[in-house]
Amino acid sequence: MKWSRTLIPTLRDDPQEAEIPSHRLMLRAGLIKKLASGLYTWLPLGFRVLKKVEEIVREEMDRAGAIEILMPILQPRALWEASGRWETMEEIMLLARSHSGRELVLGPTHEEVVTDLVAHEINSYRQLPKNIYQINTKFRDEIRPRFGVMRSREFIMKDAYSFDVDGAAADRSYEAMYEAYRTIFARCGLSAMAVEADTGVMGGQRSHEFMVPAASGEDGIVCCDACGYAANAEQAEMTPPEIGAERTAEALEEVDTPRQRTVEELCAFFATTPDRFIKTLIYLKGEEPVAVLIRGDREVNEIKLAKILGGAVELAGDEAVRAATGAPIGFAGPVGLKGIRIIADRTLNTVVSGITGANRADRHLKNVNIDRDCQVGEYYDLALVGAGDACPRCGRPLQLRRGIEVGHVFKLGTKYSRAMGALYKDENGDDRPCVMGCFGIGVSRTVAAVVEQCSDESGIVWPVSIAPYQVHIVLLGGGDEGLDRVAAEAHDLLEAGGVEALLDDRDAAAGVKFNDADLIGIPLRVTVGRKFLKTGLLEVKPRRGGEVSTCRPDELLEKIRTLIAAGC
Amino acid sequence: MKWSRTLIPTLRDDPQEAEIPSHRLMLRAGLIKKLASGLYTWLPLGFRVLKKVEEIVREEMDRAGAIEILMPILQPRALWEASGRWETMEEIMLLARSHSGRELVLGPTHEEVVTDLVAHEINSYRQLPKNIYQINTKFRDEIRPRFGVMRSREFIMKDAYSFDVDGAAADRSYEAMYEAYRTIFARCGLSAMAVEADTGVMGGQRSHEFMVPAASGEDGIVCCDACGYAANAEQAEMTPPEIGAERTAEALEEVDTPRQRTVEELCAFFATTPDRFIKTLIYLKGEEPVAVLIRGDREVNEIKLAKILGGAVELAGDEAVRAATGAPIGFAGPVGLKGIRIIADRTLNTVVSGITGANRADRHLKNVNIDRDCQVGEYYDLALVGAGDACPRCGRPLQLRRGIEVGHVFKLGTKYSRAMGALYKDENGDDRPCVMGCFGIGVSRTVAAVVEQCSDESGIVWPVSIAPYQVHIVLLGGGDEGLDRVAAEAHDLLEAGGVEALLDDRDAAAGVKFNDADLIGIPLRVTVGRKFLKTGLLEVKPRRGGEVSTCRPDELLEKIRTLIAAGC
Repeated sequence: MKWSRTLIPTLRDDPQEAEIPSHRLMLRAGLIKKLASGLYTWLPLGFRVLKKVEEIVREEMDRAGAIEILMPILQPRALWEASGRWETMEEIMLLARSHSGRELVLGPTHEEVVTDLVAHEINSYRQLPKNIYQINTKFRDEIRPRFGVMRSREFIMKDAYSFDVDGAAADRSYEAMYEAYRTIFARCGLSAMAVEADTGVMGGQRSHEFMVPAASGEDGIVCCDACGYAANAEQAEMTPPEIGAERTAEALEEVDTPRQRTVEELCAFFATTPDRFIKTLIYLKGEEPVAVLIRGDREVNEIKLAKILGGAVELAGDEAVRAATGAPIGFAGPVGLKGIRIIADRTLNTVVSGITGANRADRHLKNVNIDRDCQVGEYYDLALVGAGDACPRCGRPLQLRRGIEVGHVFKLGTKYSRAMGALYKDENGDDRPCVMGCFGIGVSRTVAAVVEQCSDESGIVWPVSIAPYQVHIVLLGGGDEGLDRVAAEAHDLLEAGGVEALLDDRDAAAGVKFNDADLIGIPLRVTVGRKFLKTGLLEVKPRRGGEVSTCRPDELLEKIRTLIAAGC
Repeated sequence: MKWSRTLIPTLRDDPQEAEIPSHRLMLRAGLIKKLASGLYTWLPLGFRVLKKVEEIVREEMDRAGAIEILMPILQPRALWEASGRWETMEEIMLLARSHSGRELVLGPTHEEVVTDLVAHEINSYRQLPKNIYQINTKFRDEIRPRFGVMRSREFIMKDAYSFDVDGAAADRSYEAMYEAYRTIFARCGLSAMAVEADTGVMGGQRSHEFMVPAASGEDGIVCCDACGYAANAEQAEMTPPEIGAERTAEALEEVDTPRQRTVEELCAFFATTPDRFIKTLIYLKGEEPVAVLIRGDREVNEIKLAKILGGAVELAGDEAVRAATGAPIGFAGPVGLKGIRIIADRTLNTVVSGITGANRADRHLKNVNIDRDCQVGEYYDLALVGAGDACPRCGRPLQLRRGIEVGHVFKLGTKYSRAMGALYKDENGDDRPCVMGCFGIGVSRTVAAVVEQCSDESGIVWPVSIAPYQVHIVLLGGGDEGLDRVAAEAHDLLEAGGVEALLDDRDAAAGVKFNDADLIGIPLRVTVGRKFLKTGLLEVKPRRGGEVSTCRPDELLEKIRTLIAAGC
């Protein structure tokens, strides 16, 4: 392909709108072009990468025994009501309304459609297992689309749905997908890690996210370099604390603490450390207040809390705190608290002689014995895990990293199959619900993740497996008919040999061409310049670094094939 | 692929909803499944065909020098206002509204987006020509979706847009696409014809539709078997009539014609033929009435009329007719008609002594000399052309056929480039608008058109180029381990040799399997049955007809390759 014939609008300067490296580089290298907020056109170079990622995904899904279909983007609202997800998903869904007044969802995901399909077309255990997938455009009404194609309103997903006879078979489907995902991301040149994750709006029993470590990642990942444990920080388990000495026998005492509200202020006031405090937070789940107790040196993980309470939670405002505790914010405590559910984090078990709010303005209690003085029925793992905490598996200190989620696998169980009637007849002729899994890959986001991970200060450094072209021929001193012909012949030779080559035939300075070559990051650069007229040699340079070498034109194809086979 | 692992829900009976052969067969063969009105899931078998058609389209577009991109499905409303098409297209567009209240169009076509892209990224004649295409999902809010994927609300299109420096260059782009289209449809096994067509909402100067002749087609095609002229009946030219004898010198005469309104009634009343009548129809373009005159034996082509009047038209109701003519419907005529635009079809030139309404109830005029008695300023080609009319090129009688539109090529001129600022600098540094073309192929509709054209009473007969698999292995007497192994080995041998094979491994009767094989229409059927145990021979039968032949398993791959090379 000649540069002049395709469309590669590179930019010299960083676009203002771009906050993270992949967004900047994808705009500057002319891979994508913004149409409107969260909506991007994939230009020729970007489109070629997208297709290669898509093809790797397709090959590995097919190899794993999945079958490809294509479901409509538009979905009737009734299906979402049938699954019970209309209310939880409505906030992020884009809706279209036909002139006849019908309301249609622009699919953010397809559990409903595929389960409805299986409900109609699968009847017998003999037809199971099935793993059905598609690669299709998806929509989310992001409140703040950002980072280019990383979080956009329209994006390309591979979504697969497995249907099995029982949990053991569903586990096998899950494992097969887990392995296929490792292969897919490795083939894309990505170093991705699987981490334990929350099941969120999908529901179900268990899930893993595939994360690409990157400083710009939107997700926190907690990991243990010692044993390999890794989890989304939203989900990471806190090691259950060892319960030490007996609790205090000293009498409860109320103390005057004027204007001392925060743990920090109170530490200074009582001349002690945060782990002595029983922090009491009032949350609202809908209208209902809940008192959540946690040790003063820990933070509540609201994702864990929401899961335990079975729905979204928010911190109560001053009015609701006064109604629940009789005191302003900063003075709540579990002693004598009535008419409100009280749940506690397991770390509280280590507090021997605690300090907490007295449910009166400017008053705290000390010498609190939680078993003696409070009515705590329920202990859970509610704490946010952070760097340095003990690994829940091996006890060594955890690390905290950032990551980009490129894939997510879920064990769904029978949530959807029961709701939508996806039943099969077993050997005895009895109806049983299919046991489901679902498995997503953000195809367009994967391209951005590769750019995030594979770049240097000059531009992108594509893995050869998904590079838009494998070879970039830079023609210098153009206008010299001899050189033009050498470059064109090198291009045609490579293409005929099955190597994808881009020929920069622009009338531009050497510096511009080399900078653009580094920016768009094709793995191998071949230079045809005036030197050739003297030496008869072409220069070959890998983008990833390494030596410039030379060869005669008739040696080029073989040389390039060798470099590609070696991963450039 | 084993039948038991994929999903091919064949139906024994015709689904009630399906009106035309392709819709019936696509449902019965398990290619598609209806989700809601005008929304279909492509099941594994149908999806494979769809992908093959898509790949043929892509290969030929690339070969013709077009470059592939992917534009967003969602488009800002403002772009449609900029091009001036919001009002003309709004009726068929699906709109999505985000939670922030923004209005987004679900793209029915992408002239606006691509012209906006070019306006930003192309500046110089040195960057032209460009032909930019995508293969993407499109949306139309059909009032009455029908015929399965033939006319659905969501469908897959290939849309290409060419940008050239001038009309001559644009003509070359048009010719290149025209040729590419012929190749594409031929490779899909379709017999398609190019016909002259209306430019419709696209605007522009000239267009051709690619039509697949089929009795169920929604379009009328007028064609001349003698010289090859072909046009959409909406567009077909009427041969200008030869103006014969002088017009009458007899005096105009008003005649009492109680309750005689239609041409048929008046023919009986006057004992004459319809070609003597000057039929006068009152149309409304918006609020404005227009009198349209045509010879009594012809019908008005409203597409031609709308083009001449520059907008949609409708026949006036009784009230508007009375307001314009002073008489009820059935008695309008051009004589003495005032305060209204009068336009006439060219066929009126042949009327020597005409009969027409007197603009009074129950009264007509005879001996009308149109030049003497009427104020007709404008003569146009307004007539609907039908079977038996003279070919506008060679004069022989025309035929009328039905066809399915699978592709459409347009010369757009500078309509969009001017409206949206897609200018380039010419050699002198002057700004000039790009001259555009646009070129569509209904990818999903092409699949339906192939089924419509390639089927018999037993089912589909796929062209080998787009068949979901090339070979269908029917295993009979399953359960016999020896036969199971022979069938599996044949399957693996073919797949390893690059032949796509489907193995029907179901526990079902021979009749069921053979019927399904004929229904889904894979080009070659290989039978592995009890006979094999005696003879050691497999049976090979082309779906298209022809002899059953036999071969040993080790000869199978070679035999199949030979049959495929011969087009089965």
